[in-house]
Amino acid sequence: MASKVGNSVSAAKEPKLSSREILLKAAGELMTERSTVDISLSDIARHSGLNSAMVKYYFGDKQGMMLALAEDVIGRSLIRMNELVVMDVSATEKLKLHIQAIITIYFRYPFINQLIHHLSTDPETSKVVAEKISKPLVEAQRVLLEQGAKTGEFKPVDPMMFYFIILGACDHLFFGRHIMKLAFGVDAIDDAVRREYTRTLLDMVFGGILKT
Amino acid sequence: MASKVGNSVSAAKEPKLSSREILLKAAGELMTERSTVDISLSDIARHSGLNSAMVKYYFGDKQGMMLALAEDVIGRSLIRMNELVVMDVSATEKLKLHIQAIITIYFRYPFINQLIHHLSTDPETSKVVAEKISKPLVEAQRVLLEQGAKTGEFKPVDPMMFYFIILGACDHLFFGRHIMKLAFGVDAIDDAVRREYTRTLLDMVFGGILKT
Repeated sequence: MASKVGNSVSAAKEPKLSSREILLKAAGELMTERSTVDISLSDIARHSGLNSAMVKYYFGDKQGMMLALAEDVIGRSLIRMNELVVMDVSATEKLKLHIQAIITIYFRYPFINQLIHHLSTDPETSKVVAEKISKPLVEAQRVLLEQGAKTGEFKPVDPMMFYFIILGACDHLFFGRHIMKLAFGVDAIDDAVRREYTRTLLDMVFGGILKT
Repeated sequence: MASKVGNSVSAAKEPKLSSREILLKAAGELMTERSTVDISLSDIARHSGLNSAMVKYYFGDKQGMMLALAEDVIGRSLIRMNELVVMDVSATEKLKLHIQAIITIYFRYPFINQLIHHLSTDPETSKVVAEKISKPLVEAQRVLLEQGAKTGEFKPVDPMMFYFIILGACDHLFFGRHIMKLAFGVDAIDDAVRREYTRTLLDMVFGGILKT
């Protein structure tokens, strides 16, 4: 117990931020290691070396911790997406970077799609997911589609339909891991698969599969 | 009890097939009604008017019943997909019908995407999903893409990447129901949403969003 208290005290200069970050990092590591988002608060305390009272203090309960982790992982990317919207490149280039970024988040945080699935099926947490994650993402996409329509790069596309097509395509590669192994004999989504999937999706979204 | 036994006996001319079908129909109805695939075997017995021993006889346990229902719903569509492959229309037309059919299954059976999600995350049932559902679907798509490449209609597309993009796009509309309501204010996926989504997805898959 002494070392645990010591650990939390050692982060005293930025007590809230860094203890919270240590806990979320531990949660993400455990989810990745165990391939499940069903991690107990006491496991997180043990893995982080922090007292379990800290976990309760920051997140309340398991759902709270899961929500905080999803917001933490995706929040940072949303900031970059907002920067993207005002960048001085073509709408086509921006939308490419946007889609690449979504796939990269799924790839870098192998637990994030399960986590979003879990949070989206609970009526309470799905409200927060919609407000803090989906709405900003939808809004960024809407602006990018509008920019491209104005410059004459894009055909008119409904942002809601676009959102579900793109998010679904990005998500399903990671949702379908078992299927990928069993139906295609591909063991893991490595960097080569990620690159090839991104390329195929971008080609389809921008140019379609029809020749002519 | 008497009426239940009577009911099962009344279907005695095709005992296996029709009792089994009655049970699966009851399971699907309960899942639709309650918006969850977490239905107990005794609920199915009660709703179907058949004895719960029958449920156990046909499906063993809950996972068995879920698997049977998924196979039943999708199996019939897979037969039609195999007919599609050999139809005398262009590959473009076939692939359109194929994608429309997938969205229609999701739309007609509102529980099917949750059911597949549930079955795909269990190591045992995911094997059956891969064999009986994913592999035949992948194979049909592979043949259609090949036909279109041969006739010069399609650019070359990797069937595995194509599978995850299309299935993900079809699935996510239904997975994201809560998000649709909360982020877009759209209450339900009605027939107009289904048609518009299908049109947008087909336009994107075949022609992309870029002008020119």
